[in-house]
Amino acid sequence: MISRMSTLFVRTLREDPADAEVPSHRLLVRAGYVRRAAPGIYTWLPLGLRVLRRIEAIIREEMDAIGAQEVSFPALLPREPYEATGRWTEYGDGLFRLQDRKGADYLLGPTHEEMFTLLVKDLYGSYKDLPLSIYQIQTKYRDEARPRAGILRGREFTMKDSYSFDVDDAGLEASYQRHREAYIKIFDRLGFDYVIVKAMSGAMGGSGSEEFLAKAEVGEDTYVRCTNCDYAANVEAVETRPVPPAASEADGWGGAPAAHAEQTPDTPTIDTLVDHLNEKFPRDDRPWTAADTLKNVVFSVRYPDGTTEALAVGLPGDREVDTKRLEAVLGEGVVFEPFGEADFAARPTLAKGYIGPGALGEKAEAGVRYLVDPRIVDGTRWVTGADVAGSHVLDLVAGRDFTPDGLIEVAEVKDGDPCPKCDGTLESARGIEMGHIFQLGRKYADALDLRVLDENGKLVTVTMGSYGIGPSRAVAAIAENTLDDIGLCWPRNVAPYDVHVIATGKDDAVFDAAAQLTADLDARGLAVLYDDRPKVSPGVKFKDAELIGVPTIVTVGRGLTDGVVEVKDRRSGERTDVPLADAAAHLAEVVRG
Amino acid sequence: MISRMSTLFVRTLREDPADAEVPSHRLLVRAGYVRRAAPGIYTWLPLGLRVLRRIEAIIREEMDAIGAQEVSFPALLPREPYEATGRWTEYGDGLFRLQDRKGADYLLGPTHEEMFTLLVKDLYGSYKDLPLSIYQIQTKYRDEARPRAGILRGREFTMKDSYSFDVDDAGLEASYQRHREAYIKIFDRLGFDYVIVKAMSGAMGGSGSEEFLAKAEVGEDTYVRCTNCDYAANVEAVETRPVPPAASEADGWGGAPAAHAEQTPDTPTIDTLVDHLNEKFPRDDRPWTAADTLKNVVFSVRYPDGTTEALAVGLPGDREVDTKRLEAVLGEGVVFEPFGEADFAARPTLAKGYIGPGALGEKAEAGVRYLVDPRIVDGTRWVTGADVAGSHVLDLVAGRDFTPDGLIEVAEVKDGDPCPKCDGTLESARGIEMGHIFQLGRKYADALDLRVLDENGKLVTVTMGSYGIGPSRAVAAIAENTLDDIGLCWPRNVAPYDVHVIATGKDDAVFDAAAQLTADLDARGLAVLYDDRPKVSPGVKFKDAELIGVPTIVTVGRGLTDGVVEVKDRRSGERTDVPLADAAAHLAEVVRG
Repeated sequence: MISRMSTLFVRTLREDPADAEVPSHRLLVRAGYVRRAAPGIYTWLPLGLRVLRRIEAIIREEMDAIGAQEVSFPALLPREPYEATGRWTEYGDGLFRLQDRKGADYLLGPTHEEMFTLLVKDLYGSYKDLPLSIYQIQTKYRDEARPRAGILRGREFTMKDSYSFDVDDAGLEASYQRHREAYIKIFDRLGFDYVIVKAMSGAMGGSGSEEFLAKAEVGEDTYVRCTNCDYAANVEAVETRPVPPAASEADGWGGAPAAHAEQTPDTPTIDTLVDHLNEKFPRDDRPWTAADTLKNVVFSVRYPDGTTEALAVGLPGDREVDTKRLEAVLGEGVVFEPFGEADFAARPTLAKGYIGPGALGEKAEAGVRYLVDPRIVDGTRWVTGADVAGSHVLDLVAGRDFTPDGLIEVAEVKDGDPCPKCDGTLESARGIEMGHIFQLGRKYADALDLRVLDENGKLVTVTMGSYGIGPSRAVAAIAENTLDDIGLCWPRNVAPYDVHVIATGKDDAVFDAAAQLTADLDARGLAVLYDDRPKVSPGVKFKDAELIGVPTIVTVGRGLTDGVVEVKDRRSGERTDVPLADAAAHLAEVVRG
Repeated sequence: MISRMSTLFVRTLREDPADAEVPSHRLLVRAGYVRRAAPGIYTWLPLGLRVLRRIEAIIREEMDAIGAQEVSFPALLPREPYEATGRWTEYGDGLFRLQDRKGADYLLGPTHEEMFTLLVKDLYGSYKDLPLSIYQIQTKYRDEARPRAGILRGREFTMKDSYSFDVDDAGLEASYQRHREAYIKIFDRLGFDYVIVKAMSGAMGGSGSEEFLAKAEVGEDTYVRCTNCDYAANVEAVETRPVPPAASEADGWGGAPAAHAEQTPDTPTIDTLVDHLNEKFPRDDRPWTAADTLKNVVFSVRYPDGTTEALAVGLPGDREVDTKRLEAVLGEGVVFEPFGEADFAARPTLAKGYIGPGALGEKAEAGVRYLVDPRIVDGTRWVTGADVAGSHVLDLVAGRDFTPDGLIEVAEVKDGDPCPKCDGTLESARGIEMGHIFQLGRKYADALDLRVLDENGKLVTVTMGSYGIGPSRAVAAIAENTLDDIGLCWPRNVAPYDVHVIATGKDDAVFDAAAQLTADLDARGLAVLYDDRPKVSPGVKFKDAELIGVPTIVTVGRGLTDGVVEVKDRRSGERTDVPLADAAAHLAEVVRG
């Protein structure tokens, strides 16, 4: 397969596009892989489409290898199934909704759980039909609030989504593991650095869930990993290592004195409070720090069904609430914001800046649900608000002096936090979500009544798994993960071409030799991009080749008088002179590894 | 490649789906190729997807062979470009429109002329960049008023659309011919009966235009062909053979007497009028017929820009106005209906049932534009309404007694009408539009300002061609064109599998032999559907095979005791016993032709 630069539909650009935030976006546009059509909506040019297709082909092969069968659903979907599962509402503004000429409601599918569930219900009815895994590679739509970084987070994008259907949990676990192994093969073949992390399942429901992240500084996903063991988790899914109770009633609460309120004027923030404590109530053993204080942050929350509540989160004063973790806990479509003046005015028992557990909890007058960080275990002793402006309570003991309504895991995770699985510590890094596998369980089957007859002739609800990879996002993520200072630098398995041949100078003999070499490479089954432009300088051709990022660049030029061509490895920059006569065989070997 | 019926995601149905109007729809659903998701919106099951992919691959090969380059546009498109060309409005209710979370207008692309034009404008600027042909195979949306016949006329469907860009008309003609030849190769390879007809270009604008129609009784397109020469045209595009003037002022209008009004009570229809003429005004040479009368039909017309007009069509009384032809002449998005009571009430000079040319024409009091069929040439003599109830005019001569505002080609075409190209006659047939090629010319380049520098450094407007094939519709059209009484019957090049192997009985040796044969065929590169279901009767397996329609069916069963298997040609029904040992080689030969 040969493409010629003289006719290839591409224009490389020297200037960065104005809206490009991340290197991959900049280079994919400059090198002529994609082109913006609207915010978050892109057109694929020939170079980009070739990379996309190669990624899709790898995914398809590995899906087929585990016996998953390909189908294809429409993108334009009727409202009813999404109404039945509640997602028509839950998706909020993220869903593109429209009406047809008769006024019937439709949506552009963001994911297809409902449709897959209904199709299997439509066709199958017995345990004998299962297990089943079906998948599609198809266009999806999400009306992102902030479409970002070109095709990295677009509003129209391609997804491979597969779904497994089993009669029981053991079957689901086996289907999940089969997909997990296929995903590992896919990501290994794609040829870039990735990590598998535990994940929240979000709006999808379900239990077990892991994400495949491309390691990337520009990634939107923060994950943490243990410096000691193999634990890794999306920041939303990090669990705090369980802390045993610090003291209990049986041991007299560790000898803690009774809680006592103290005047602490002008201390509405943790910093001012800690300064005040160290000045007015100094401790012998160690100074007060933010970690000694219990901070209570109150949010007003609106759920997709329209109901609202006030929710207080209690956590050690040295940590903030991580809004992404709170988002993940509350679920898709839930809107929240910290209490404002009006909220406080409506609840006079809450003293802004001095809120303590006494005013919180569902039984208290303010009617605010009170959930605390798992570090607030029984017997721990805190300084916290006394529910009166300018006053705090000291020696307030959890379990003795207050009992929250429950626990919540939304405190920010810090480097050095203990690993939940071993004695190591956690460190954070950034990545791009490339794949997500999860055990949906029976959420969709229940909502849409997908049941089959089991061996005893009884109807049982099917249990499902859901497995996604975004091929279009993968193009950007792989680009981001592999590019260098001078341009794109594709892994061999996904590069748009195997070899980029450049003819330099004006000598007909050079162009003849380059054309012949190109033909020989094509005959050996290699995909070749041949820069045959007659009036373009060698410098421009080299720059274009470096920008486009085909892994192997061959220059046919002055060396020809000595019977050699130059073979350059795009990544290492290493150059080798190879006799023209051997070049095709040599390159075939380089490409095939 | 092997699929097994025991695990293939398919359920064949014995009952026809309730909404199926045409045989291909019935069979594609019953055989498990597609499944309805919403009106006019379908899901592709594994069998259907395999056929679709094979069709797409053939199209892609032939497009690549003429140097067309593949790109991929989004389906979700911004309003602005379609506003610039007027199609945002012109498409009327046929366009799916929606808004994003910020209230910006979008549409689901029905065709992509605008986007292709803008992309080329974005990247290219010189005559040296042209000619260029680019294409995509992509999902399109049209909110059909009457989605029909399953995937034959869906609301979400796939299209290969390509566009050519040239600096001049000769270049466009060459690009058009290259595409035409590629289309002929594609349709030849798809393996069914088709015809190329002249077509109207409709809302697309432009000049030269041809359609590729699959011959099919259930087709929505009527076309006519000459029984003598190669003339064929979509019924919308049929031209009437030019008729020379019958008489003129110079020859005294053929001696026609002066027009004279006569009482013709109770003759509001052509039939009643002809009866009355033969009774009261008999002619010596021949009786009056409907062809002697001039019928004037008045329509109220509303254009996409909101303007309206009254339009009268004059045509011989033996023909009706063909509304599809009128639609095609008026263009996409124009709504029209025959005058109703209120319309007549508003124009008292029009006598319903007795309208004559005297009351028509833009200068007459009623202000109705008057266009006539090309058969109403100067010198022809007519009986027509006298604009008074119960009265007609005889011997009214066109050119002498009235002059219409212009001509219009909307009269129904009848079998036996003269061919416009030779002395032959026309006959009509029905087909399914499978491909459409047309010379758009400069309509889109003008609207969107796509200009390039020519050899002299002057800006010239680019001229474009547009070329479409619907792969998803092709699945239905090919099915329709090739099916028989017992099921689908695929041409070899698009069949989901090359061979369907059936194992019958309960004998392990049979299943072993069938599995081995299947593996041998796979090793030879054939795609095999193997019916390995252990507890399904031979009768059901045969019926399923006939329904699914793989071209070659091999039965491994009782013949095995004699060392033979039965090879059946699905189309002819012909059966041959082949020694098991030779079967794989024999079948490879059958499949490869």
